Amino acid sequence: MKNVDTQREILRFRNGKLERTVDTVVTEFPVTLKVNGQEWVTMVCTPEYIEDMAVGYLVSERIVQRYEDIREIWTDEKEGYVNIRTDKVNPYYQQLQNKRYITSCCGMSRQAFVFVNDALAAKKLDGIHVRITIEDCFRLMEELQKNAAVFKKTGGVHNAALCDSGGINISRMDIGRHNALDKIYGYCLKNGVSTKGKILAFSGRISSEILLKVAKIGCEIILSKSAPTAFALKSAEELGITTVGFIRDGSMNIYTHPERIANITAYACSSS
Amino acid sequence: MKNVDTQREILRFRNGKLERTVDTVVTEFPVTLKVNGQEWVTMVCTPEYIEDMAVGYLVSERIVQRYEDIREIWTDEKEGYVNIRTDKVNPYYQQLQNKRYITSCCGMSRQAFVFVNDALAAKKLDGIHVRITIEDCFRLMEELQKNAAVFKKTGGVHNAALCDSGGINISRMDIGRHNALDKIYGYCLKNGVSTKGKILAFSGRISSEILLKVAKIGCEIILSKSAPTAFALKSAEELGITTVGFIRDGSMNIYTHPERIANITAYACSSS
Repeated sequence: MKNVDTQREILRFRNGKLERTVDTVVTEFPVTLKVNGQEWVTMVCTPEYIEDMAVGYLVSERIVQRYEDIREIWTDEKEGYVNIRTDKVNPYYQQLQNKRYITSCCGMSRQAFVFVNDALAAKKLDGIHVRITIEDCFRLMEELQKNAAVFKKTGGVHNAALCDSGGINISRMDIGRHNALDKIYGYCLKNGVSTKGKILAFSGRISSEILLKVAKIGCEIILSKSAPTAFALKSAEELGITTVGFIRDGSMNIYTHPERIANITAYACSSS
Repeated sequence: MKNVDTQREILRFRNGKLERTVDTVVTEFPVTLKVNGQEWVTMVCTPEYIEDMAVGYLVSERIVQRYEDIREIWTDEKEGYVNIRTDKVNPYYQQLQNKRYITSCCGMSRQAFVFVNDALAAKKLDGIHVRITIEDCFRLMEELQKNAAVFKKTGGVHNAALCDSGGINISRMDIGRHNALDKIYGYCLKNGVSTKGKILAFSGRISSEILLKVAKIGCEIILSKSAPTAFALKSAEELGITTVGFIRDGSMNIYTHPERIANITAYACSSS
């Protein structure tokens, strides 16, 4: 597989001086997913765990319903293809792909989903299977940052980790925000790791795309050091996901479903 | 038009205390572009300058060749549609959209372009029409950050500005990286503002997608406080674009085409 980063000569201006030096930059690799021989989508990604990403993408987006429906998967690295053979492409999918979602469905308001495939794949959580403390939130975000080796070298990737309250189970990075999540989910599917009651720690902003991906994977809590969007929070509220953002410098914002933060009552709750 | 941000009640943990407070979060608005009545693409964006964004997108991606080819444009805000009427959709486009680019073309190596439309729309610059100093780079990035009102409130958007060496001409923000650039380009097309010899200052990472958009718009220099990817730098080298990244804390990296940085020779250039 190609390298996840590469060296190149640059000019660096620092302390009032210009110097010729060697810098590490992150690589981008365009991979086209072929399903039964047909080009499906091209993903520009960090070149590692490519087959996991393909599996995670196909199942989280419900293009195939279950991992077991994938008969064969192989990579043509030189040409940049991941090939999937399956007998069971979701019959609704091909005609619905990227079609807008107009009628209301599953009791959700129209605004929560723009695309039909999001409405099909992102299901409301069926209860509370995990609780963490405020201190856990800080600790998991710290662990995520400690793990981020490529980010430290290049500054150019997003980091994501599947966690339980004890710590990080599996972490992945990618230049594409959702690719990191697909890589985690694909690994879990292939290795029988359950995502039920799990926590997703993420370095980037919580856009609606990221929030819906978390829902499709089945995690209950998303932690981020960055901001969420209003649309992501609306979806989180309806889908039952706990959203915690701006976890940095000893502070954090709990946006939705605080019932999974176990020790809220231990802290006095005033109004500002 | 909808608001670019919204207020919501959250729980904030700070200084060891939890408080109920009101926070400002950025909004996301899904807009579907219809060309002659047909759904073309859905862009999730910040709800301002929507028609500029549509114009910038269509012309930069060469779906229509020139702004003058757009006969009519109107927004159905309630349903989230921007409608475009044109007699001149690029005839190559419909069949080529998102098709991978296989054969070499225009003297570019295959790697520089993944998609045919990128190869059609991103042309090599025809020389040097602007030079700036190292001090200009710092100053323009500072001005960009000073302008970033919504970012300061919400932390959730990307900022971009079209500049010349004197300062910022026009700045836009969006939750989508490329949307901010499309909004700038659309404004320029509608108002007869030339992009030739201009500089693009950007708050986010320089991915290949961003670099190619800069090329399609016709800017010669891109400035960023963040990291570039190797793929973006390869494209920048071939297209003749000057790339300066990690502009922060009195330091910067000049990655490609340093000939547009006027006062390089004024600083001693050592090797580290």
